Amino acid sequence: MTACSTDTSKRIALVIQYLGTNFHGWQRQPNHRSVQAEIEQALKAITGCRIKLYGAGRTDSGVHAAAQVAHFETESPIPAHRWSNVLNKYLPVDIAIRGSAEVPKTWHARFSAQWRRYRYSLYTDPRPNLFLRPFTWHYYYKPLDVERMQAALAPMVGHHHLAAFHRAGSSRPHSWVDVQAAECRQAGQKDGYSDALVEIELQASGFLYGMMRLLVGMLVQVGRGVRSPESFTQIWQTEQREQVRYAAPPQGLCLLRVGYPLFPFPPEVWFDTFPQFHLPAAASV
Amino acid sequence: MTACSTDTSKRIALVIQYLGTNFHGWQRQPNHRSVQAEIEQALKAITGCRIKLYGAGRTDSGVHAAAQVAHFETESPIPAHRWSNVLNKYLPVDIAIRGSAEVPKTWHARFSAQWRRYRYSLYTDPRPNLFLRPFTWHYYYKPLDVERMQAALAPMVGHHHLAAFHRAGSSRPHSWVDVQAAECRQAGQKDGYSDALVEIELQASGFLYGMMRLLVGMLVQVGRGVRSPESFTQIWQTEQREQVRYAAPPQGLCLLRVGYPLFPFPPEVWFDTFPQFHLPAAASV
Repeated sequence: MTACSTDTSKRIALVIQYLGTNFHGWQRQPNHRSVQAEIEQALKAITGCRIKLYGAGRTDSGVHAAAQVAHFETESPIPAHRWSNVLNKYLPVDIAIRGSAEVPKTWHARFSAQWRRYRYSLYTDPRPNLFLRPFTWHYYYKPLDVERMQAALAPMVGHHHLAAFHRAGSSRPHSWVDVQAAECRQAGQKDGYSDALVEIELQASGFLYGMMRLLVGMLVQVGRGVRSPESFTQIWQTEQREQVRYAAPPQGLCLLRVGYPLFPFPPEVWFDTFPQFHLPAAASV
Repeated sequence: MTACSTDTSKRIALVIQYLGTNFHGWQRQPNHRSVQAEIEQALKAITGCRIKLYGAGRTDSGVHAAAQVAHFETESPIPAHRWSNVLNKYLPVDIAIRGSAEVPKTWHARFSAQWRRYRYSLYTDPRPNLFLRPFTWHYYYKPLDVERMQAALAPMVGHHHLAAFHRAGSSRPHSWVDVQAAECRQAGQKDGYSDALVEIELQASGFLYGMMRLLVGMLVQVGRGVRSPESFTQIWQTEQREQVRYAAPPQGLCLLRVGYPLFPFPPEVWFDTFPQFHLPAAASV
């Protein structure tokens, strides 16, 4: 066995998928199953060393990831590109490593990231669909007006103080966020598929604790017509945190991508590995 | 409580989704979890009566269903259209009833059915994708030539004796099948999505025991170039059952629809409730 820590260690970056359903989120914690702890245990089993894994961002309990990014250091002679296959042999069925590559010691999964992109998926048909249940919020109380929701999202693009969507319990000292994209759409509608699947995507420099789920919880009020797009905007601009009462459930949320200026993976490893769930429109029968 | 069996009983048809992963198939059997037994237990819990459920077709262990059809008889005063909601309250998370309706006593889920349609899904990208794992065969040994596979399937349409794809252990006395449609395609390719998802669909008057999985196991040999479309056709035409050695794994298979001349459900209840899993083509980045 090689030594666990010397000057000749290599830094390895990973692209990681996980199904959040049976995890208490990304972060290691006592007495709960976490993605970070599962991968660290696999690294221990492979190398015999206690190795710390650094993730690009924490995800909450029940939230999925299509391309979470993390890094670790090791003395192991395993070639960098082989780590994905080796780890997959040790990992449970709800974690899969899509790729592994060596990165410079100055590259950091969290601090080198320029943006994160999340997708929230809703299923609005009144009938339950078993195959969508693990990945969507089944929201069927009223039809959702996607154009109204898009109108409410548009003013969010830019540099804003989003304390209204900042859940208590975060250690982050401020609520400033650079929102680079904010979109709401009916998935697949243009291609003749059902309009029952609604996707909300946000790309930002960083995400506040609980931000995406609080934002979606309020955005559906706009979509069902009980709140105007203007009122949505006013609430976050005037930081009325007490008006933001409902968090959308976690299973609809997925960390879609993380962006880096230097990233050693081709797009097929990390780009949108979370499928769009297209249902043929029943009217086409 | 009303009586369990009288002349005034009603016949109720159900459209049923299930995730096959944790079932030993549709059919009730001792010491194994089955879809039929779970629904019959729910009917017992609701009515206090032992009620037998008749399904349109049996599915194997691990095979999914998007719109299995079944019927039962009951004296219960519960209105026919309410049964789906009532049952869903008693059923486990891997079964969902999409709809319920009264049918005439002459209507039978199995014997009134004119055809069944199955879809088999393959994922051909070399990298594992966690979100597709429960629904696809991860087949990445060689690229699959979908046009060759379609050429091999085309001669199957018609009235044929398919003993080559008839697994042992069936009680069916013959192997005649009317194949109405046989298609192979790259899912979503035309819309700019990844070509890594391959779907094979067959519609037929009935399916022999093991037929779809044996057929797919041989069809991928055509797709990867080790067998010609003509050899594929010759094997089933000359009934060389001993040449058909490999069954594709069950998780790629889904009972998509069942067809009836009289069916009391609108298309949105039963038409393609199994989503197509579309991944954006990485080249579009």
